[in-house]
Amino acid sequence: MTETARPQTSQPKSAADTAPERAPADIDAADDRARRLIAQMGAAARACLGRLAAATSDDKTHALVAAARAIEADAEAILAANARDMAAAEARGLAPALLDRLRLDTDRLAGIVAAVDKVAHLPDPVGRTLASWQQPNGLAFERVATPLGVVGVIYESRPNVTADAAALCVKAGNAVILRGGSEAVETNRALHAAFAKGLASAGLPGEAVQLVPDQDRRLVAALLGATGVVDVIVPRGGRSLVERVEADARVPVFAHLEGLCHMLLDAAADPDRARDLALNAKMRRTGICGALETLLVHKDFAPHLPPILDALKAAGCALRGDAGVCALDAEATPASEADWATEYLDAILAVRLVDDLDAALDHIARYGSGHTDAIVTEDRGAAERFLAEVDSAIVLHNASTQFADGGEFGFGAEIGIATGRVHARGPVGPEQLTTFKYKVRGSGQTRP
Amino acid sequence: MTETARPQTSQPKSAADTAPERAPADIDAADDRARRLIAQMGAAARACLGRLAAATSDDKTHALVAAARAIEADAEAILAANARDMAAAEARGLAPALLDRLRLDTDRLAGIVAAVDKVAHLPDPVGRTLASWQQPNGLAFERVATPLGVVGVIYESRPNVTADAAALCVKAGNAVILRGGSEAVETNRALHAAFAKGLASAGLPGEAVQLVPDQDRRLVAALLGATGVVDVIVPRGGRSLVERVEADARVPVFAHLEGLCHMLLDAAADPDRARDLALNAKMRRTGICGALETLLVHKDFAPHLPPILDALKAAGCALRGDAGVCALDAEATPASEADWATEYLDAILAVRLVDDLDAALDHIARYGSGHTDAIVTEDRGAAERFLAEVDSAIVLHNASTQFADGGEFGFGAEIGIATGRVHARGPVGPEQLTTFKYKVRGSGQTRP
Repeated sequence: MTETARPQTSQPKSAADTAPERAPADIDAADDRARRLIAQMGAAARACLGRLAAATSDDKTHALVAAARAIEADAEAILAANARDMAAAEARGLAPALLDRLRLDTDRLAGIVAAVDKVAHLPDPVGRTLASWQQPNGLAFERVATPLGVVGVIYESRPNVTADAAALCVKAGNAVILRGGSEAVETNRALHAAFAKGLASAGLPGEAVQLVPDQDRRLVAALLGATGVVDVIVPRGGRSLVERVEADARVPVFAHLEGLCHMLLDAAADPDRARDLALNAKMRRTGICGALETLLVHKDFAPHLPPILDALKAAGCALRGDAGVCALDAEATPASEADWATEYLDAILAVRLVDDLDAALDHIARYGSGHTDAIVTEDRGAAERFLAEVDSAIVLHNASTQFADGGEFGFGAEIGIATGRVHARGPVGPEQLTTFKYKVRGSGQTRP
Repeated sequence: MTETARPQTSQPKSAADTAPERAPADIDAADDRARRLIAQMGAAARACLGRLAAATSDDKTHALVAAARAIEADAEAILAANARDMAAAEARGLAPALLDRLRLDTDRLAGIVAAVDKVAHLPDPVGRTLASWQQPNGLAFERVATPLGVVGVIYESRPNVTADAAALCVKAGNAVILRGGSEAVETNRALHAAFAKGLASAGLPGEAVQLVPDQDRRLVAALLGATGVVDVIVPRGGRSLVERVEADARVPVFAHLEGLCHMLLDAAADPDRARDLALNAKMRRTGICGALETLLVHKDFAPHLPPILDALKAAGCALRGDAGVCALDAEATPASEADWATEYLDAILAVRLVDDLDAALDHIARYGSGHTDAIVTEDRGAAERFLAEVDSAIVLHNASTQFADGGEFGFGAEIGIATGRVHARGPVGPEQLTTFKYKVRGSGQTRP
């Protein structure tokens, strides 16, 4: 079912055309070197697309399994490389949270391997018939999923992204250029080397997965400007990384802004269910983009709120409340305007009483980031209104916002969660890493 | 089936954040004025999204029918405005081809009205369930089509784009900001005024369709940089317009590069069918992006080529051939390397003999623009290989490349044909002007 596609190679021309558009100040020898290097990597990546597209579903599965085995085989070297990164990071006084993201151990490496194995066995997203129809003139139209092309992934300190992104891109028949965080440079090199070796051992081109060779930031700028060389950029990291990418990119970007997630406890919410969901949405893991940041409470539900706030405090959560909430809970500190617009990614929750569903919808429209928002209610009508009217990638009824995850959606894995509105929205799994083409079969039809 | 969605309004924040990224030299009073104006138009457009999404399918149909009637009612004023544009354009010595694109008459205006009526009665692209599934934990997932948001359309001299783009965007629940060509400024104002009046008369906000008020080019730059204000830009025009847009845009763009379309006459092509298809693909209309530019001929089919070349010449087509073709046709002039990479949009055809299917595929991969390519053959295997391996938006077997058109696809209308790989590829109709969200319905599920 997978198909061979010959990538168009006329595009680098347009890359050259657009280069002069950049600020002249930019253009110096180091920039030229960076652009040349990215252009070379991109050409090598594009040269792989035909073979990737020609690969059968089984070919890709076997190659990804081989990559997983190669990571296992290189475990010692990968952990040693990570130890060097950790030592350097500690010497530079990296924050404990960042050190924890960077750290690999046997268990975490096993998790990376398991993720690659899982992606290997996902259904092939390429070659699916997305639609088919016939026109009165007899022309038969078929819309078929095809690889997206060359994907650039720019990420921060988590080394697992190296393997996750590579596996997802190859599964979808794409070539990928990876640019990880400086702290993880040794770990990423070791992981990448193993992955590419595994692909090659199974007959797929190792150049399908490339790692930017050094941490020169000009290489990021060159990657972001490489129209026609890179088909799409996926930024995976914090707000500053994503905003820099979105500001500088000439290449299409799958936007990944913050997850300022809301949960509305509606008038008709079940109190126990509301407690369990608020607690899980906020405290299961506070550092992920699907974590709850603002709890909205219908004023008629307020009498049921104190035990829920107690449960949150007992779990270690600090509360920032509006006047009504502070009146209900002496330990809540007054929320400022900034609190409604803050993604804490921490054990802090902003809590606000609202007069009705409309007020809650207006609050979310004003402060939300279009990521994930939930309503807790036994009122089906209120739930359906919320699901219809909240303009976010993921809207949930009576479920935790922490389900905002490709794995939980059944995608097998994700390269991130898109908050943009173009192409990919929500968890970006293998299917979102494909594009499509139209096959039109005729019998000599000419256009009148 | 249509849904109300409250547009996130937190995004202008990110627009402000990215503004400092622009070259300081840009930032002067005129730029500020342009940015403020676009920001105001964008805010007014975004403010319409809730009402557009709340509109039922019938509401939208009636509003677009009302817009069509309003254009009919204003016919006299619109034609008078067009006469003023034509007079000014003639005085400036605009090329005849451009004057013809600009000209409106009663028939052409009736065509514009008919196109709006047609879009009015298309199926509603919003609210479609694109997928639905259940996870083992009982969570029910639904992927639903939603409006894309605020669309910016930048186009050239054809005034019909004003009505086409407005109708397509409103049909998909989007607000649109239109920026047409300077030569058509009076015509576009008159068309836009009628369209907006029609929408308003049917209860939809007239601000859903806005026209950039003057031709200051800084307004284009501001539109291209309006991240968070405009969700996507659709450039519709020639290569220079599209390349400028793609080079300068910070907002996502539906790429519309040239249509360097190929047709391969395979060894197993039926000679009569080959003649009819080549003639139609090249000569039906030479100025559209689906017009044939390069004819590739399998060497085994060469004996059947002369009568086909004669038919093309008889229809007024000039031939640029490789050595083999020039040997077959004394009137063919030798093709240079540039001919293989040229979109003539004129009665000129480049013709090349190829040794086999692989050579044809390599030629298309090297020189093609990823738009539309066709094979003529009675050999099913060769046809399927061509459809699989040519990496273009539209690939056809035994049909004219001039079918590269949203109407011919059954989309009812199109805002253009995308040659990019992200979100929209091929004809951009109402469905391609939507995005989606995930509705997740649970019964208290928390994430373990």
